[in-house]
Amino acid sequence: MRVLITGGAGFLGKRLANKLLQRGRLKDAAGRERTVEQLVLLDVVAAEGFADPRVKVVAGDICDTQLLNGIFDSGISSVFHLAAVVSGQAEADFDLGMRINLDASRQLLDVCRSSGRRPKVVFTSSVAVYGGALPDVVQDTTALNPQSSYGVQKAVGELLVKDYSRRGFIDGRVLRLPTISVRPGKPNKAASSFASGIIREPLQGEEAICPVSPETRLWLLSPRLAIESLIVGHELEAAALEGGRSINLPGVSVTVAEMVAALEKVAGPATVQRIRWQTDPMVERIVGSWPGRWDASRAEALGFSCDSDFEGIVRAYIEDDLPANQATEDRNTN
Amino acid sequence: MRVLITGGAGFLGKRLANKLLQRGRLKDAAGRERTVEQLVLLDVVAAEGFADPRVKVVAGDICDTQLLNGIFDSGISSVFHLAAVVSGQAEADFDLGMRINLDASRQLLDVCRSSGRRPKVVFTSSVAVYGGALPDVVQDTTALNPQSSYGVQKAVGELLVKDYSRRGFIDGRVLRLPTISVRPGKPNKAASSFASGIIREPLQGEEAICPVSPETRLWLLSPRLAIESLIVGHELEAAALEGGRSINLPGVSVTVAEMVAALEKVAGPATVQRIRWQTDPMVERIVGSWPGRWDASRAEALGFSCDSDFEGIVRAYIEDDLPANQATEDRNTN
Repeated sequence: MRVLITGGAGFLGKRLANKLLQRGRLKDAAGRERTVEQLVLLDVVAAEGFADPRVKVVAGDICDTQLLNGIFDSGISSVFHLAAVVSGQAEADFDLGMRINLDASRQLLDVCRSSGRRPKVVFTSSVAVYGGALPDVVQDTTALNPQSSYGVQKAVGELLVKDYSRRGFIDGRVLRLPTISVRPGKPNKAASSFASGIIREPLQGEEAICPVSPETRLWLLSPRLAIESLIVGHELEAAALEGGRSINLPGVSVTVAEMVAALEKVAGPATVQRIRWQTDPMVERIVGSWPGRWDASRAEALGFSCDSDFEGIVRAYIEDDLPANQATEDRNTN
Repeated sequence: MRVLITGGAGFLGKRLANKLLQRGRLKDAAGRERTVEQLVLLDVVAAEGFADPRVKVVAGDICDTQLLNGIFDSGISSVFHLAAVVSGQAEADFDLGMRINLDASRQLLDVCRSSGRRPKVVFTSSVAVYGGALPDVVQDTTALNPQSSYGVQKAVGELLVKDYSRRGFIDGRVLRLPTISVRPGKPNKAASSFASGIIREPLQGEEAICPVSPETRLWLLSPRLAIESLIVGHELEAAALEGGRSINLPGVSVTVAEMVAALEKVAGPATVQRIRWQTDPMVERIVGSWPGRWDASRAEALGFSCDSDFEGIVRAYIEDDLPANQATEDRNTN
């Protein structure tokens, strides 16, 4: 089978690609195990670091329908649609967010439909589709009420995936991801960027700004389990989707203060002193509108899992991602 | 002030136009009463029957951005966006539904935004945004869960109106209308067309097909009160929208059996014998997914009202719309 990953040069895209290459197999629409023959990584820049002959790197605009049609002509039967303009950026640049998060998703669904192959489409949604007056624990029946343009665009994507699936154009599955922490690399324009930054930067000996109050509650998932969840979501059989195509994934519910305490436990007090508290009203408004916890029992019953606690997430980050010298250096300081 | 009605040649559009001409005034964004200087009626066909010099009839494609921009150049500050492909047609012709109900709405919002005038936009939504397992009485907090392409397109429109309003591009108000009954004229391609047909056709001495079971429960509003509601929705002040921009309008909850009983009471047993019961699975599936009742207390508090009962709706139809000779003829037969 041939698989497309949009946002294939991004952090999750590359990691997912490596995992799929290592795994080598995925279930097709009929639930049969198939060999992954080709993995197309589409992104605005070329995904680097792939020597595997099964990987085809495509650098181009996801809004370019001709490009997409060309990719599908080779016989794509599964799509992981990860390409997105992140929350803070979609708020700062409305047109860009609409173009990538709404128009490109719509066009991708239309290309899937034109292919006549009814591809599996794993669509990543977000905590940002919720908002307003929320119960302490969001339920599957809680109304979507996004408070940011990003959240609106994701909610629209969910509705389209659902309808395209109902009509038999695609076989869609919407995974509502918790905030991913700890993301390696540099800060990005997500309103939640700090949820990685306040761990990652101090561990590398750098200062990090925390733009929200310590009481802010977040719903988090490590990159490791996010990748695993994408694959579990792809492998779900039709019966699993009868309860609805949108699935609230398990996560860890922690306050920012608890995150900092976990970091201190793992890396010592000198590390957490590198966090500077400086409120950013835009970030506080957006992140504050997201649920800090939702009921993930349906997802758990379907085989999704999450990290056991935030301390484990910090340790996994150090193991998987922290540049070796810095981890050592940091450990030496404690 | 200048006002645009999309779908201006349609049944609701023309009626709204006449009401606005008669009324002569509307509140602007600041809540000040303004004279209606011009009423632009845009539709795919020319709206007929308007001699009033304040009316400008435009026949054209609502997806034509250049046309829309031209209309807005004259200084539109209020829009009643009624143009839509109805439920049954959007289900039968997916592309047409997406083009008119989603793309055209999106483009209209963008033109409103480009105008820089932050126009008031009254967007009509529908019972069709709800579906799935519903409580007996749908609440304002009940999640949208559309089961038809029309419902999905309306739900997307709601999300966009909300975000464009939040960002200050428009001043939007979403009115979720009950099913309108009794519509005059011919049957249309709405799945709910029968909700008017089973009253209108028998009163004119013609046979009507009822494609759903007598137990089917509907949430109904007369044309008279639908028009009144559109105006109330336009006149709402900013404070009224703090509880959310989508408003579930009051209606009358009746089963089809109760509708037929009301018709019999008004027009006699010979009339209801003109109804032929013949199930249509597509109509049953779509209409059966809609709520038969919702909590409209917020709307009532904001000044919206509905008919007192279905018998009153039938009598209003006879008064307002039934061709005089037929009403007489029909009365003579009882």
